[in-house]
Amino acid sequence: MKFTEKLANATAKNNSLLCIGLDTDLAAMPENTGVFEFNKAIIDATADLVCAYKPNLAFYEAMGIPGLQALQKTVKYIPGDIPVIADAKRGDIGNTAKAYAKAIFEVWGFDAVTASPYLGYDSLEPFLNYQEKGTFILCRTSNAGAIDFQSLPCNVPPSPRQLFEIVADKASGWNKNGNIGLVVGATYPEELSIIRQSHPNMLLLIPGVGAQGGDLEAVIRNGKDAQRAGIIINSSRQVLYASKGKDFAAASRKVAEQTRDTINRLRNAK
Amino acid sequence: MKFTEKLANATAKNNSLLCIGLDTDLAAMPENTGVFEFNKAIIDATADLVCAYKPNLAFYEAMGIPGLQALQKTVKYIPGDIPVIADAKRGDIGNTAKAYAKAIFEVWGFDAVTASPYLGYDSLEPFLNYQEKGTFILCRTSNAGAIDFQSLPCNVPPSPRQLFEIVADKASGWNKNGNIGLVVGATYPEELSIIRQSHPNMLLLIPGVGAQGGDLEAVIRNGKDAQRAGIIINSSRQVLYASKGKDFAAASRKVAEQTRDTINRLRNAK
Repeated sequence: MKFTEKLANATAKNNSLLCIGLDTDLAAMPENTGVFEFNKAIIDATADLVCAYKPNLAFYEAMGIPGLQALQKTVKYIPGDIPVIADAKRGDIGNTAKAYAKAIFEVWGFDAVTASPYLGYDSLEPFLNYQEKGTFILCRTSNAGAIDFQSLPCNVPPSPRQLFEIVADKASGWNKNGNIGLVVGATYPEELSIIRQSHPNMLLLIPGVGAQGGDLEAVIRNGKDAQRAGIIINSSRQVLYASKGKDFAAASRKVAEQTRDTINRLRNAK
Repeated sequence: MKFTEKLANATAKNNSLLCIGLDTDLAAMPENTGVFEFNKAIIDATADLVCAYKPNLAFYEAMGIPGLQALQKTVKYIPGDIPVIADAKRGDIGNTAKAYAKAIFEVWGFDAVTASPYLGYDSLEPFLNYQEKGTFILCRTSNAGAIDFQSLPCNVPPSPRQLFEIVADKASGWNKNGNIGLVVGATYPEELSIIRQSHPNMLLLIPGVGAQGGDLEAVIRNGKDAQRAGIIINSSRQVLYASKGKDFAAASRKVAEQTRDTINRLRNAK
């Protein structure tokens, strides 16, 4: 099934715009718990509360081959009706991007990916050619360093804009198959508003609530589309590490449920 | 040993600025040859001709866990006096970049990495904090799509410049420990010249000769520093896939030797 349909179905079934970022980190996890075992417990406890899961590959790569084996098991374990986004932020020349796309969509079996725009269209095309899969292009990221380049004022017709706006405009132009979304950090609600106003129908993946401090109310006000949707709000650490005790999965469920319900209350507020 | 010293030693010992890109691709390889077996044969045949090796992680990820196991064996097999660069083009927020840096430098054991600048300084800092390791920041890449964003004219004091020039300037400013280099594609000799003129002492990693068609003579004229060095010239496909027959390693050696010697002739030309 096409990523966007799968996402719409999971969103409807679970009445949720919440994505849980499976950034599984041995240092933050309950002790004596395996990586897959931890992910399985989180998934079992939250699969009726989310619209998607998003493992960030860095955390698994940092654990070497056993970490990547746990990632593989995790992707397979997630129920088939919930889309899984590879937070990979890949970006390389065409020949190599083709290998990355194969790895993420065919080998690991993800439904969607995050990708960097720095190398331009031909670095994204191999991902976009998988029309059933989703590709989220980094636009305005959630970190402090985002201003170093993403906010540079560029002289581009018809009017000067910041780099992230040009990325959004180009991505929108490339979105002929409706399989492109943008990554916009919750920590920059003004930039989020600029992007949403220019691109009323673009799907936005929004990390940065929770541990990174993004303001949920501002995010939803500025990010939601005319259908009070069009956004995927990701929380990783706040949900995953709600408790370090034996009750960790139940504690994660509680935080996930609260976050989902708060998102719903805010998006439906008049 | 610090990456830059290791590189200088290998460059001197082998009289070489040539880096071989170990972009091992089952589709292009001789039949009935394992990935590690292929890499081992290439390394055995060329280790006295190169200043570095550079496996691109995408090709190994595309083969799943067995591919990554072959990568691990390959990095370990490369003689300890030749630096190994992870062509990974990673770029993520600080917390995650720290995991990527750990993966690349500690788990896989690389001496250097390529990284994307799009997320700004705090996404690069975790790599740079490994002061013994090298970090090559993508500046002007070798692909056609490089013009989409890297050439955008930006209004930044003291004078308007293209985005890739600002990346080079910032990278130069961040280079307090001398462990930063820039990636500049051989296919853009004019941009290479702009970068070298602004940054006479910066180490440049130059992919794009060989299969990608970069002009070696223009690259060396525009890229070399005052010591007729300061550049690492990477060739991947042209060297690796010189023959699909049983003689593949000898054929690779021949191309590598010719390329190294041509580079030396051109850099020493008056």
